[in-house]
Amino acid sequence: MLELITGVSALQAPMFKLGLTSLPFLATAAEAEAADSSMVLAGVLLSLVVVYFASKLGGELCARINLPPVLGELVGGVLVGVSALHLIVFPGEGITADDSLIIKFLEFTAGLAPEGAIAVFDSQSEVISVLSELGVILLLFEIGLESKLDELIRVGPQAAVVAVVGVVAPFAAGTFGLVYLFGVPLIPAIFAGAALTATSIGITAKVLAEIGQLSSTEGQIIIGAAVLDDVLGIIVLAVVASLAKTGEVEISNILYLIISAGAFLIGSIVLGRYVIKPLYESLVAEMKTRGQVLLTALVFVFFLSYIATAIHLEAILGAFAAGLILAETNKRSELEKQVLPLADFLVPVFFVVVGARTDLSVLNPADPTNREGLAVAAFLIVVAIVGKVITGFTVFGNTGKLKKLAIGVGMIPRGEVGLVFAGVGSESGVLSPSTDAAIIMMVIATTFIAPPLLRIVFRDPAPTATETPESGS
Amino acid sequence: MLELITGVSALQAPMFKLGLTSLPFLATAAEAEAADSSMVLAGVLLSLVVVYFASKLGGELCARINLPPVLGELVGGVLVGVSALHLIVFPGEGITADDSLIIKFLEFTAGLAPEGAIAVFDSQSEVISVLSELGVILLLFEIGLESKLDELIRVGPQAAVVAVVGVVAPFAAGTFGLVYLFGVPLIPAIFAGAALTATSIGITAKVLAEIGQLSSTEGQIIIGAAVLDDVLGIIVLAVVASLAKTGEVEISNILYLIISAGAFLIGSIVLGRYVIKPLYESLVAEMKTRGQVLLTALVFVFFLSYIATAIHLEAILGAFAAGLILAETNKRSELEKQVLPLADFLVPVFFVVVGARTDLSVLNPADPTNREGLAVAAFLIVVAIVGKVITGFTVFGNTGKLKKLAIGVGMIPRGEVGLVFAGVGSESGVLSPSTDAAIIMMVIATTFIAPPLLRIVFRDPAPTATETPESGS
Repeated sequence: MLELITGVSALQAPMFKLGLTSLPFLATAAEAEAADSSMVLAGVLLSLVVVYFASKLGGELCARINLPPVLGELVGGVLVGVSALHLIVFPGEGITADDSLIIKFLEFTAGLAPEGAIAVFDSQSEVISVLSELGVILLLFEIGLESKLDELIRVGPQAAVVAVVGVVAPFAAGTFGLVYLFGVPLIPAIFAGAALTATSIGITAKVLAEIGQLSSTEGQIIIGAAVLDDVLGIIVLAVVASLAKTGEVEISNILYLIISAGAFLIGSIVLGRYVIKPLYESLVAEMKTRGQVLLTALVFVFFLSYIATAIHLEAILGAFAAGLILAETNKRSELEKQVLPLADFLVPVFFVVVGARTDLSVLNPADPTNREGLAVAAFLIVVAIVGKVITGFTVFGNTGKLKKLAIGVGMIPRGEVGLVFAGVGSESGVLSPSTDAAIIMMVIATTFIAPPLLRIVFRDPAPTATETPESGS
Repeated sequence: MLELITGVSALQAPMFKLGLTSLPFLATAAEAEAADSSMVLAGVLLSLVVVYFASKLGGELCARINLPPVLGELVGGVLVGVSALHLIVFPGEGITADDSLIIKFLEFTAGLAPEGAIAVFDSQSEVISVLSELGVILLLFEIGLESKLDELIRVGPQAAVVAVVGVVAPFAAGTFGLVYLFGVPLIPAIFAGAALTATSIGITAKVLAEIGQLSSTEGQIIIGAAVLDDVLGIIVLAVVASLAKTGEVEISNILYLIISAGAFLIGSIVLGRYVIKPLYESLVAEMKTRGQVLLTALVFVFFLSYIATAIHLEAILGAFAAGLILAETNKRSELEKQVLPLADFLVPVFFVVVGARTDLSVLNPADPTNREGLAVAAFLIVVAIVGKVITGFTVFGNTGKLKKLAIGVGMIPRGEVGLVFAGVGSESGVLSPSTDAAIIMMVIATTFIAPPLLRIVFRDPAPTATETPESGS
């Protein structure tokens, strides 16, 4: 049986499990408890079935029409999410347990009592949410494992230029364009401009992995720039949020972020090389029980991810750093093999959830707010694409065979960060509903357009001469 | 960045993430929300680090002193759980967010606000709980994959006798002993007797796998009997719970359980052979994207687990059935290899959580309730062990080289189900606190004694002649 539970809390399990709703003396105690654990498990199992079904259906269809599978996973997510089937939905604005088809299904098939539905819905959503976050952590760990620290350091200056230009150009063009072309006041314009800055590293990295370009020079520049971009995005968000509140920038917060981000990136790599790498190798060599290569690695991955979260950076930065560090150990190839099934288990949850959370109703032209936003959205989309595409051409040095266009295109997808800006902006009253809708449209467009574009630009003439062979590691 | 969130719900993330608690207009909205998602993630990451650390530390120590690693994982769990370090604890009787060291650590290191601690603690506990349930699901799927349906059917009658004797003997001996030796009234005695019935399949199966005896005849009889036992345990619980309530047995509930359990076991195997097996093989052959072997299998595993939960059986029965079915496909060995890392990721969570939930304070002789319970506990432990050990000697047929003692010993660990009985009994007022404590002591003793015993009895004379070689599949 599933749960080792003592005392009162043991009650939830047997009661619902046995359908003994006819036992009133048990029902009272159980109702006082949070969520019935066997129903939460049932909801999670059903959600995972839906997630894998959607991800494979979309992925396979896209693979057949020669589009990147990850695009199919996103579209599959949209299909089962808030925009269509309502199977994978999350509590939030306008969404309650009644809107979840999975909860309805549990009520119908498993005898979930309607009064317990809200708690089960909340818990199940929380679990799926965390699984999707573990998914992107595993994805970035995989990316880190397949990257080479030396190569990243080598392309570092180029990546830094790409990152900075890719933040400044769309921010400036977006803000000024909104003010001068659309007459938007300065603060909301700055907000919308800021929403254009940060690249969504997950989507680009997945496509690069799918087409085997992750360890090419272009791929490494894109990954390096996207990581820096992520850090810059967090800083820009802090600046803008503090501007929106007081009209001035809180220097202490910004300084704290800049210093902690720098310390984290440099510290984890130095510590990684001189402490974690030898520690990991000797631990694994000493251990006799099953799973030593994978579990020891996961301890480092989760620990660095935790530290990144604790200092208010992103968990994925820690996971990426852990990947870079463990890529230098003597267990790299074994680790890569063992991470694969785990990533296959968790990563699709991330992409399907990203799709499922995308609310396509902002695209509905019947809604006047959306119509107002359409012109702004078109402008933001153009700025978002052009502002990143040009970054490829800022790469300096010996760039003879480098596919500069590919680098720029790799930086296009926005995703999550843009939506966080939209959320903060609309809640604080800084953004009008139409500008808010326009930002969401921009995120949708860049997220869905980048994967196919990226494949086209990489398919160009011949393979790059500077490409590092996958097997060379 | 981690979350694709729209509208208001986007707020939780950036605010805490940036430590912008100085933004009052954001704080209000965020406080209305459930739990801050980046803190929940941080809590889960930290919990997983603790879980893996405890499981590997315990496992490695046990491997070195020649005890089963799984015992070490349980002990590691006890160490980090409610009995000692309070790192992995779950909301329930007397445990709140203030009792969780991980929550304290988050408040200290990551700036978690105390007023948000309860929601974060609840969500984080829910996630770890579900991960541990997914762990035992994966474990039983692995066990199913390594079992052979034909072999199980062959030993079926023997397993059935072992299961029935192993339920009837301890139940009868326990109930009568308590009534006649200890003067316990009939209803609580029946309750305590019932708590002696169901074997904890997870612990035995893990030890069998560790010593490579899973596909031996003894191993298959144990697994088969433990699965039947699990079903019988659910039925006994329904009978006893209804007895405790009305003083009579609700026939309709019992009939429903017996019929649905039978229909599920037979139905899933028939359906599995003639529908799922060919469907799985052709699906995998058709698919072109990464992870097709594993993900397609997981869809079946999670779906059957869901069905088992929905009809008020155990999710692990569905996972075991899925394993049996997919073991017959042409992808078995590839699947076994790919499930390994996933099981390594999830299964330790189960064992550590089992240990962490074990409250050793019932063993404290300073508490008068425990002292009263000690004699009862000693009696229950003896009945629990003897009642199962004799089952091995009921195996009939050609049993020349069969290690009968090993079969009986394999049935000893009780674990979860016993605790569910204790919980239901004490809550309904049927069990006195001392009998309740005695049941918990019995569960602790059988759970922790079985793994080393099992290794000793299997180490006996020579390997059995009837043992099926692992590679012969």
